[in-house]
Amino acid sequence: MGVSEHQHGYLAAGKKQDHLKRLRRIEGQIRGLQRMVAEEAYCIDVLTQISAATKALQSVALSLLEDHLGHCVAEAVQHGGPEADEKVREASAAIARLVRS
Amino acid sequence: MGVSEHQHGYLAAGKKQDHLKRLRRIEGQIRGLQRMVAEEAYCIDVLTQISAATKALQSVALSLLEDHLGHCVAEAVQHGGPEADEKVREASAAIARLVRS
Amino acid sequence: MGVSEHQHGYLAAGKKQDHLKRLRRIEGQIRGLQRMVAEEAYCIDVLTQISAATKALQSVALSLLEDHLGHCVAEAVQHGGPEADEKVREASAAIARLVRS
Amino acid sequence: MGVSEHQHGYLAAGKKQDHLKRLRRIEGQIRGLQRMVAEEAYCIDVLTQISAATKALQSVALSLLEDHLGHCVAEAVQHGGPEADEKVREASAAIARLVRS
Repeated sequence: MGVSEHQHGYLAAGKKQDHLKRLRRIEGQIRGLQRMVAEEAYCIDVLTQISAATKALQSVALSLLEDHLGHCVAEAVQHGGPEADEKVREASAAIARLVRS
Repeated sequence: MGVSEHQHGYLAAGKKQDHLKRLRRIEGQIRGLQRMVAEEAYCIDVLTQISAATKALQSVALSLLEDHLGHCVAEAVQHGGPEADEKVREASAAIARLVRS
Repeated sequence: MGVSEHQHGYLAAGKKQDHLKRLRRIEGQIRGLQRMVAEEAYCIDVLTQISAATKALQSVALSLLEDHLGHCVAEAVQHGGPEADEKVREASAAIARLVRS
Repeated sequence: MGVSEHQHGYLAAGKKQDHLKRLRRIEGQIRGLQRMVAEEAYCIDVLTQISAATKALQSVALSLLEDHLGHCVAEAVQHGGPEADEKVREASAAIARLVRS
């Protein structure tokens, strides 16, 4: 799936650090879940923690998507032509996967 | 949220290992996501990986929930009384959180 | 999919009227959506209305599911045997469809 | 929420008819659900039908969203300026509501 040059650097440095920080926190939640299962924590508490991790992941996805629409898609649209349509279709397919996951 | 004695051991040993294995794989996906963001992988590829991790988490949740319904909730229902109603309400609330996350 | 006798009457009269009232309101929302599309209302407003109708539908589902767990599944569990396991599996599959839709 | 002139006619005639047809089918599903509840159909069958209607609604939403990104958002982006950013933010908020509903 096309990594072309003008996608590099699409994230402002601050945004990138923010995404990484959130993903490290999610990694911590997943390790916490492993401990909970290993220690046989109460099932409902495990499920609550899974819901929290899922929401945190979706939140990272929505933030990345907003950047993507505002940068890659916007740039392609300004250039116009078939690449613009292709970017809109590609973003729409990614949105559909998020909505259905 | 009440960890009482009869919840311990609600997971057959095989099930527990299976949940742990899946959670370790999800942890690997989250670390992969960090690398992708650090290296500024193409946004759509990051989103695809987030959808995969989200589905994997939900799948662990659904599997835990089925065990919970078949063990903790079933046991409470057999004892009857207010605890049975409470367990059904608690499970329903957890299901609602999953559906909405 | 097994409609057997003891499922009839699983809904208290009040609950049934409440579900019907909510479904009629959702039907009204869907007709409102048709008007919006026919009159080419602003796309974002149409999407907001679709999100509202989706949440309302899920809310009916969660309410029905809680009744089902507290009645049909609880009853089967009290009788025990393979039917109890079957009811738990069937409810779990319905929950999975809700989580994934 | 701003219905401005250039949004009118954002739907090709064929698309509009397609959306209306799908919404009428969903209205039929909701009426079917009312009959099922009135006749006390088996709960799991009602839930299956709710999942189907939910998926159908989301599918209309995703199709409208793709049109919106390809027309309203693309047009605003080509004009540039603060309206472009505003359209991207507005679309992102609508996507977030869909993902969370």
